[in-house]
Amino acid sequence: MISVNEAKNLILDLCNSDRIQTLPLIQTCGSVLAESVLATIDTPPFHQSAMDGYAFVFELWDGVSPLMVIGEIQAGQISNKILKANEALRIFTGAAMPTGADTVVMQEKVMIQGSHILIQSPGLIKGNNVRLQGSQTMKGEIALNKGQLLTPAGISYLAGIGIRDVKVFKPTVSILVTGKELSTVSEVLESGKIFESNAIGLTAALQLLGINPETVEVVDDVEEELVQSIKSNLNVDLLILTGGVSVGDYDLVPKSLANCGVNKIFHTVKQKPGKPFYFGTYQQTLIFALPGNPAAVMTCFYEYIAPAISRFTKKEYFKSLLLPLSTDFVKKSGLTYFLKGKTSNHEVTILNQQESYLLNSFAIADCLIELEEDKEFVNQGENVRVLMII
Amino acid sequence: MISVNEAKNLILDLCNSDRIQTLPLIQTCGSVLAESVLATIDTPPFHQSAMDGYAFVFELWDGVSPLMVIGEIQAGQISNKILKANEALRIFTGAAMPTGADTVVMQEKVMIQGSHILIQSPGLIKGNNVRLQGSQTMKGEIALNKGQLLTPAGISYLAGIGIRDVKVFKPTVSILVTGKELSTVSEVLESGKIFESNAIGLTAALQLLGINPETVEVVDDVEEELVQSIKSNLNVDLLILTGGVSVGDYDLVPKSLANCGVNKIFHTVKQKPGKPFYFGTYQQTLIFALPGNPAAVMTCFYEYIAPAISRFTKKEYFKSLLLPLSTDFVKKSGLTYFLKGKTSNHEVTILNQQESYLLNSFAIADCLIELEEDKEFVNQGENVRVLMII
Repeated sequence: MISVNEAKNLILDLCNSDRIQTLPLIQTCGSVLAESVLATIDTPPFHQSAMDGYAFVFELWDGVSPLMVIGEIQAGQISNKILKANEALRIFTGAAMPTGADTVVMQEKVMIQGSHILIQSPGLIKGNNVRLQGSQTMKGEIALNKGQLLTPAGISYLAGIGIRDVKVFKPTVSILVTGKELSTVSEVLESGKIFESNAIGLTAALQLLGINPETVEVVDDVEEELVQSIKSNLNVDLLILTGGVSVGDYDLVPKSLANCGVNKIFHTVKQKPGKPFYFGTYQQTLIFALPGNPAAVMTCFYEYIAPAISRFTKKEYFKSLLLPLSTDFVKKSGLTYFLKGKTSNHEVTILNQQESYLLNSFAIADCLIELEEDKEFVNQGENVRVLMII
Repeated sequence: MISVNEAKNLILDLCNSDRIQTLPLIQTCGSVLAESVLATIDTPPFHQSAMDGYAFVFELWDGVSPLMVIGEIQAGQISNKILKANEALRIFTGAAMPTGADTVVMQEKVMIQGSHILIQSPGLIKGNNVRLQGSQTMKGEIALNKGQLLTPAGISYLAGIGIRDVKVFKPTVSILVTGKELSTVSEVLESGKIFESNAIGLTAALQLLGINPETVEVVDDVEEELVQSIKSNLNVDLLILTGGVSVGDYDLVPKSLANCGVNKIFHTVKQKPGKPFYFGTYQQTLIFALPGNPAAVMTCFYEYIAPAISRFTKKEYFKSLLLPLSTDFVKKSGLTYFLKGKTSNHEVTILNQQESYLLNSFAIADCLIELEEDKEFVNQGENVRVLMII
């Protein structure tokens, strides 16, 4: 049995290589770019009018004569007309400039005289109201750098320069939930069974971190089935199992993992809840086998899995801080306690119903309070480490 | 033309009614419960062993005799055996207690003598190591209160008590993107066209707030098509349009909205970018018609749409703070400027390339800087309002 800090360090030591996925742009908001993105086209892709107005060739205009309007270009259209001296084309915002034209006068700055316009814009100079081709980004230029967090504006920007897929720092994750007593929520509950809740809880937790699990399976506690499911899910970066990890006759997970060639790093941690927590590796895959009690599952998620994922995605998720405890608390020495808490007025209160099979306190908690392994008594007002959760 | 603050107030005044959706549990993490959830079953649904060990009837044991092990109950199973004096059943964590049995002795606290066990647990009392039926939640009890933020643990908790769908505070949203010049990103770019990027940018932005748009359509700038699309999307809580909202000959959105019976609240705001921003209502639907330039779209999303959604979801999204500006800045009086900025070392810097057709600065910005309407000059070191964005 190792300490919480040893367990955390052993896990994080194995989270230093990059885990990169190429994903459709729409799935990457909130992720960090794993390679610089090069522009594949000039943007704008052509000289573009920035206004509703009239396009003309500045140097072919004598500065006083009315211009004859010889046609119109809407956004999305192109015109093959070549403008001659004292000619103009009606043009709209976003439309491609006609060949040779370099200047747009706003529609508000002209007087219309039949088929002609008279420009009334004393300050107008060559190039006004035109967005030059490539003025945002040139083909081949770096559009966004590796390491950039992708925001909605970043997604929109990349879509605008024709990018469809990007490489981001993001591990793949699968979930295997074990237990003969589990009923999925769509069924009627049979005697002796309970509704399965770890799969949905872990899926929701992963989605909070921007990760959709590759597979979520409820596996029967039968060794052959377990081995089969583990084997077919060892291709992900993180494999999370719940249940069957204790030392009971039907706790088949550690044995099944060994049968699959998984290298055990540790099994059992000096903590409450979640003492039977198992961690191992198989090539690049990290295997987190958690005890099946839902509060232990959630605690291990926040304390071990989220920090591991954070290393891979290069993002911060849950803030840790020190807060004074609102009451005295007595605990057993030799185990780190993770308690469901609620913060208010710059202190933190331990919620009732901390047993690992109960989730009602966890459901209203806004933090996990860590009470250190060697402590037997924590005084009211003493600072404790608090992990703020969502 | 109204001021930014007038526009914000007019919108928020219309965001006071509740918008509630009933959604599958897995889609509600991060949402706020719109009604209290009642437990539909006792949880645990039966008296349950908390340990791997042996179940027996405490008062039928004489305290010294070995107990005969007359069978086994795995998790998920039930046993019909009735335990008599000095009898026990092998039992595993999570398994249903046999009828009448009230106590479990841990397997570590017995000595096995053939078909009997000798209990070596001096402190053992009646009820030990048993989780009583309903000890977490009783059928009919309030499991979670209206107003509770649903966390992964909350989702897991509700799944565990058999809940499949919950009512949450969340508006429905649809997106209509207009513009003849728009090519969707899966196509090759034709002359005169640009890649459409507002639909994906707004979709990503809404997903950040936990909302998947009901429909996302790219609509041609033809009045009949526009009217048709608007009509078939007036059943949502928020309808967002982009493009066609200016005063050009082909800016058909305000006219089409009027044709659909939309009540204009305002059109044009004293701001840069996004001056032609239109806002209206149709029964319970709020209509945000944004200018088509991508930077204007994103700015209006953060400044107007996100605060409106925040009212409906009862959640905070983007933090506003005051920070000193890193350089002097000259602006036009009469317009509020929203500038793409980057914070560092407790000050904020205005990024280059602020034009509304450019997104490269927005893609790396971590905030929007608001410079007030009546200002003409902002001094280095002067505090400005900064909206932190993701």
